Amino acid sequence: MALVVCKFGGSSVADAASIRRVARRVVYLQQAGNQVVVVVSAMGDTTDELLDLAAQVSPKEPPTPRELDILLSSGERISMALLAMAIGDLGYRAQAFTGPQAGLLTDNSYGDARITEVQPERISQSLAGGNVAIVAGFQGFHPDSFDTTTLGRGGSDTTAVALAHALDASVCEIYTDVDGVFTADPRVVPAARPIQSITYEEMLELAAHGAKILHLRAVEYARRHGVKLHVRSSFSTIPGTIVADQEGTEMEQSVITGLATDQSRAKITAVGVPDRPGIAAEMFEAIAAAGINVDMVVQNVSVTGTGKTDISFTINQGEVARLQPVLAELQRTMGFANVQFNEAIGTISVVGAGVRSNPGVAARVFGALRDEGINIDMISASEVRISVVIDSADLQAAAQAIHRAFELDREGGEAIIYAGTGR
Amino acid sequence: MALVVCKFGGSSVADAASIRRVARRVVYLQQAGNQVVVVVSAMGDTTDELLDLAAQVSPKEPPTPRELDILLSSGERISMALLAMAIGDLGYRAQAFTGPQAGLLTDNSYGDARITEVQPERISQSLAGGNVAIVAGFQGFHPDSFDTTTLGRGGSDTTAVALAHALDASVCEIYTDVDGVFTADPRVVPAARPIQSITYEEMLELAAHGAKILHLRAVEYARRHGVKLHVRSSFSTIPGTIVADQEGTEMEQSVITGLATDQSRAKITAVGVPDRPGIAAEMFEAIAAAGINVDMVVQNVSVTGTGKTDISFTINQGEVARLQPVLAELQRTMGFANVQFNEAIGTISVVGAGVRSNPGVAARVFGALRDEGINIDMISASEVRISVVIDSADLQAAAQAIHRAFELDREGGEAIIYAGTGR
Repeated sequence: MALVVCKFGGSSVADAASIRRVARRVVYLQQAGNQVVVVVSAMGDTTDELLDLAAQVSPKEPPTPRELDILLSSGERISMALLAMAIGDLGYRAQAFTGPQAGLLTDNSYGDARITEVQPERISQSLAGGNVAIVAGFQGFHPDSFDTTTLGRGGSDTTAVALAHALDASVCEIYTDVDGVFTADPRVVPAARPIQSITYEEMLELAAHGAKILHLRAVEYARRHGVKLHVRSSFSTIPGTIVADQEGTEMEQSVITGLATDQSRAKITAVGVPDRPGIAAEMFEAIAAAGINVDMVVQNVSVTGTGKTDISFTINQGEVARLQPVLAELQRTMGFANVQFNEAIGTISVVGAGVRSNPGVAARVFGALRDEGINIDMISASEVRISVVIDSADLQAAAQAIHRAFELDREGGEAIIYAGTGR
Repeated sequence: MALVVCKFGGSSVADAASIRRVARRVVYLQQAGNQVVVVVSAMGDTTDELLDLAAQVSPKEPPTPRELDILLSSGERISMALLAMAIGDLGYRAQAFTGPQAGLLTDNSYGDARITEVQPERISQSLAGGNVAIVAGFQGFHPDSFDTTTLGRGGSDTTAVALAHALDASVCEIYTDVDGVFTADPRVVPAARPIQSITYEEMLELAAHGAKILHLRAVEYARRHGVKLHVRSSFSTIPGTIVADQEGTEMEQSVITGLATDQSRAKITAVGVPDRPGIAAEMFEAIAAAGINVDMVVQNVSVTGTGKTDISFTINQGEVARLQPVLAELQRTMGFANVQFNEAIGTISVVGAGVRSNPGVAARVFGALRDEGINIDMISASEVRISVVIDSADLQAAAQAIHRAFELDREGGEAIIYAGTGR
């Protein structure tokens, strides 16, 4: 008998009718001969509504992290109890477990806790007793204080992967509101196609560069422990996408798997920076010390004779406000001319195992953009990825052109990613 | 330094603005030199909304009690976290604790669990650290399974009283949406006045016979352990009502303290029951075996020569449907003529320590009703209470007449009760 862990996101359990649909799906899985563990997110927009309430009662001070975690973790308690009841109503047995009851031990970093250990004995017992085990996603507890902790955005995916590993499940199914991982975000590239399989490494690159279907931490956890992921729709029976290692995916070596698009970044340029050794290190150490994550960095060649250079980098738009005082202080100490902020940028990342062995990939990306008359602002690359920053107004045309250039819209071309929220 | 436990019901924490008002009130109490423990109910109608969701996902089967308790207990987790944040926003320190974290151990009667032990060490530590301790009402946990349990309707009052006892608090303040305990429900008797103090015994009789301001179990717990209760408004600074023993209330002996009205009962009459010894026992044993609580019982004198009698009793209207098959079976085995149901009844209970020593009390009640031309259907009495069942259409006029007859609307006359939900 196979053991399957499935995770249903907020949009899959948004109301009573959705919860009943999920219940039928889960019962079907069990009737097909599986032991089934279900991880659920909070219903629909519950988490955002709770955050909104927190802001209303505490307009001046940020809420204490411990109490914020108690607040946010209540959303999953509601959905897990309701799903257990809905399964019971179909005549099958289900038991609901909070993160603490499911044995999800974490550190005490409220709001962004890391799982330190999984003690799934109670879940195993429940399964052995013939029950479907329902587990609240996104939450665990710190064993010293018995305080509830939350795992941060995307935490329910991580809960599911961690339980799948601890219970030695045959697969971790991530149910979402789209039909799997696509070659591109279909809202940006209508010709995008669902892809059948993808490696952890490629999935990580896509997730890190704008694909929202799976959370980075969950994919990292899955790769580290070899947990096979299956991303599929809770609204259809379309096969979806397998995320595994090379053997697990059974796919032919392809040049490009897909592309990710991202409009959440801002480009910052420090203009007229004195061009002496160590200047970049000084700047980025100060920014890192403020806890701000820098994505891409480009330093222009020094303009001959001036001894000055420009340094550009990208960060999350949400961190611009925190960056400004840091840059103002750097401008004073380093003496550069001025700082330019640009939030009207878009990033396209082309991902595939073939990037490392095919020098022609970059050329094909640049050529596709040139043919569309689109200017490239910044470029960065890894072993399996090439990213370009362009004007956000060009993002859609650029993504479509690159998608075509690699024949991703044709069967046999290769493929990737697209959004879907849930956590 | 005094230790005060206060409980705020659902209407006191119905929205963000209300929660902020409660926060100011709590901070004021702490600033006045008290250590403060706050017990909160779920926000407004949260519990009813969760019950409604449960009914939607599980229309055929009643939800499993274990999962229903997980569901319902999440409401208090939300309100307690928000209140802690609101106090933090005012610049003071607060920590929120779930029922389990506050050390409220219960038996495993999901949905109606009894508190078996209170281990309030964590609350004491939090207070010693200068915090306001916020505790989720209505919930505890079963120490063998670590499952969350709920205490049933009115459970938050019981949580507050149990914590007040365990922490040896000087008083347990029950904040509600009315100005205290009244001589009668002001919606029924507009001349009703707030009363300053009342004994546990009188409060129990009132609570048992329709007064909804305090829950019976909480008052019983308070009486058993001598916890002084203070019922007051969360919307005003009016002194409210003290519930304590005779010395605690410091009140002069009065004949009548107040009256309770109740329209939630139904009267059932078995007509033409064979009048032989043991017939009543047979009937009420069968009804008790079905778990239905009988309130008042009246057996008419046998009509001469027929050997038949009528037996009338009252039960909660909500239990009529469950009673019907029991009565149908009794009718078959005992051979009585028919059964009459009447839900158009009202009960008025006159409560006061003077009832036991003043034979004139009953006469004054009956006289007041006679003067209004109101017919009495059933009568029952205890040491400190006389109750009459009348036509529900006459309830208001009857209550006002009795209220006047005992001069409860005048200073120096005596007083009680009135509603206010919350649990």
